[in-house]
Amino acid sequence: MARIAPLSGFPEWLPDGRVVEQHVLDTLRRTFELHGFAGVETRAVEPLDQLLRKGETSKEVYVLRRLQADDDDTAAVDRSAQLGLHFDLTVPFARYVLENAGKLAFPFKRYQIQKVWRGERPQDGRFREFAQADIDVVGAGELPYHFEVELPLVMAAALGALADVGLPPVRILVNNRKVAEGFYRGLGLEDVDGVLRNIDKLDKIGPDAVAELLGTECGATPEQAKACLELAGLSGSDASVIDAVRALAAANGASNELLETGLAELGALIEAAAERAPGVVVADLKIARGLDYYTGSVYETVLVGHEGLGSICSGGRYDTLASDGKNTYPGVGLSIGVSRLVSRLLSAGLVRATRGVPTAVLVAVSTEAERAASDAVAAALRARGIPADVAPKAAKFGKQIQFADRRGIPFVWFPGETHQVKDIRSGEQVDADASAWQPPAEDWWPRVVPAV
Amino acid sequence: MARIAPLSGFPEWLPDGRVVEQHVLDTLRRTFELHGFAGVETRAVEPLDQLLRKGETSKEVYVLRRLQADDDDTAAVDRSAQLGLHFDLTVPFARYVLENAGKLAFPFKRYQIQKVWRGERPQDGRFREFAQADIDVVGAGELPYHFEVELPLVMAAALGALADVGLPPVRILVNNRKVAEGFYRGLGLEDVDGVLRNIDKLDKIGPDAVAELLGTECGATPEQAKACLELAGLSGSDASVIDAVRALAAANGASNELLETGLAELGALIEAAAERAPGVVVADLKIARGLDYYTGSVYETVLVGHEGLGSICSGGRYDTLASDGKNTYPGVGLSIGVSRLVSRLLSAGLVRATRGVPTAVLVAVSTEAERAASDAVAAALRARGIPADVAPKAAKFGKQIQFADRRGIPFVWFPGETHQVKDIRSGEQVDADASAWQPPAEDWWPRVVPAV
Repeated sequence: MARIAPLSGFPEWLPDGRVVEQHVLDTLRRTFELHGFAGVETRAVEPLDQLLRKGETSKEVYVLRRLQADDDDTAAVDRSAQLGLHFDLTVPFARYVLENAGKLAFPFKRYQIQKVWRGERPQDGRFREFAQADIDVVGAGELPYHFEVELPLVMAAALGALADVGLPPVRILVNNRKVAEGFYRGLGLEDVDGVLRNIDKLDKIGPDAVAELLGTECGATPEQAKACLELAGLSGSDASVIDAVRALAAANGASNELLETGLAELGALIEAAAERAPGVVVADLKIARGLDYYTGSVYETVLVGHEGLGSICSGGRYDTLASDGKNTYPGVGLSIGVSRLVSRLLSAGLVRATRGVPTAVLVAVSTEAERAASDAVAAALRARGIPADVAPKAAKFGKQIQFADRRGIPFVWFPGETHQVKDIRSGEQVDADASAWQPPAEDWWPRVVPAV
Repeated sequence: MARIAPLSGFPEWLPDGRVVEQHVLDTLRRTFELHGFAGVETRAVEPLDQLLRKGETSKEVYVLRRLQADDDDTAAVDRSAQLGLHFDLTVPFARYVLENAGKLAFPFKRYQIQKVWRGERPQDGRFREFAQADIDVVGAGELPYHFEVELPLVMAAALGALADVGLPPVRILVNNRKVAEGFYRGLGLEDVDGVLRNIDKLDKIGPDAVAELLGTECGATPEQAKACLELAGLSGSDASVIDAVRALAAANGASNELLETGLAELGALIEAAAERAPGVVVADLKIARGLDYYTGSVYETVLVGHEGLGSICSGGRYDTLASDGKNTYPGVGLSIGVSRLVSRLLSAGLVRATRGVPTAVLVAVSTEAERAASDAVAAALRARGIPADVAPKAAKFGKQIQFADRRGIPFVWFPGETHQVKDIRSGEQVDADASAWQPPAEDWWPRVVPAV
């Protein structure tokens, strides 16, 4: 066999890493379902022309070709016949909504946990395949604002449910397109997207360079640029941040209706969040990424203490998630980058799995002729929901205990006239009955625990 | 939006279909884990040269190309640098074993549930993307025969666990490469693969045509061909089928050691299966598919009453699942075609989901100003593990009940001085406390039930 080296950008986990990932996925799924989101999966591919509707992403698509495509196929080089792997779960979901609009009940809340692919240059070291966990709610024609409050709180609950296994606290940073746009227009700046694009560079190039660019690229006066930077400097998790924006706008003569609408929305979000998930949601007027295509709230999420990782959960409100000419479907949603999150949890040593196999009990085998007796014990344990395995060989018991030990299996069962089960960590060995004995709850299944 | 038609060969389910699929996947996973199989996921892509090692499958591969590949990349047209989507889970698992051999404990039992892709011609109507659920056990250097007995029984347990939701009974058909090879060689036929290939055509072209081909292609005399067909005619689920093969071999002077080894293995499998899963496993000496690349047991599985669907779960024993020059890794495994199974369950109307949303309780909203009170009820229910949603609008209660009804949500909650909850199927409405009330177990989560 020739190449067995890992492929850069395509992460894979060993079994104990997979236990961690699976726990994260199970926890997210459970939280989403408790909140009434229906699970959906879409195919991995979309027609290339669908994937390229947003020009910006065109660099990141993997195009598929049938290895044995015949002449008829290769002649069909028009993009509508070509297929590419989806690079997010939003484009496929929008297509799914249109395709099934007549069969779905709106507002439709769905979660979707799947791999996505980005055709990055191999040398860039980015993930080229990764799992995302998305929640979205989509309405037919209309979608009340309160969903913009609820969805980040669902994500806060989902990520909060991982705190006890060692996930650091999260902070959800929110902003609102209407606030930014209202403020900039109130100042007299019409190139809203241009201003946002430059404000987004703040952390990289600093306020002086941004002020310069706002002047040269967006025609801002020094006073206008200063006001934009002051807005970007505001943040807070209670009503005072709303007041501060309002005061800044008044001081710059930038007050207007759009700004007020945005501030009312942002204020409602902060207020509800302060009650339902205290300390988690922060209004941060610097958040610009996404505001150029979202139309209302926008969200980013950082792990406290791991801000350098960037946003692990982002999203926002679209007035037009999808449209088929007849109907428009507004949506709001967020997406967790699960692979990035799990990768950090593992590489930073924050969490660990108590074992890499599901097995709680290894049933020893005395002699190969008596294997059926061991199989029967394992079957009896499994019938009561206890994960059990049978030793692969009737080796010396020491070897069989070693087999369990190497895998982190806590118990070894010895069949016989009188059955016995041994906790190989403490060495305690007791008589046991396969139709009644059970392991302590914490040993029943592999668990994910803080690594410290 | 241009093309929103379904893509042939890429199945997708509506939310209630996904509930069925998810239940199947959860059930399989639980059964595999109860038997000590560790979950593993591999990346979706493999180097093209790995995928093409078996020439036979080369027609079915989707090759990936970065849309914006630059000249450096396109110059690298050698196959080792090209990536293709995996078409099964065996090739990636073999690679995973080699890549991580130093970190895995052998024998290594893993399950793997993932999508696979086959670059079929679109017009052929076959699935081009589908989910598979595989179990394999792989040894380092050696792998005891008893795993060839256990693995089909794990699959029998996994599929049997779906009987109560409406899956028809399964029948696992087994054969053994050593029996076939020993018998053919005993007859004096050396082109074993050729004989198997023609025997595999029995159902399609009938015994006379097969006998003819055995003569022209494999040099069989009429007597040899007759013996081969007689062997293919044998089947049974107890030791008598073993005796019948032995008698047939003796009558044709075809007895030998390899045949006896194979019969001992096949007999042990039948005997263990008769005890542990009565009526499920049948020795069928006609099964030829796969025998040309498997080296011991081979398995196919049909749904009783739906035999036309073909095998829904197949596999067998490889003496060399993987090899890295130093070590050889024998394996035995089976693979369930989950999408095909779910597709049949749904299209044949065998099963249904009790609802398409997780929600057990819809909390009504009296007025938008009182939405927080409804949110609080939902939060209290969720905190006790009860999936709850809040009405999207403070519409008339009749409308809100209709909203629940359309989604199959069984209960609507009315907040107030005194809270009440209504079973909208019976109309029964009772006082309730969000910190204590719970739905009947059968309404708690969506369930999958026989459709009849």
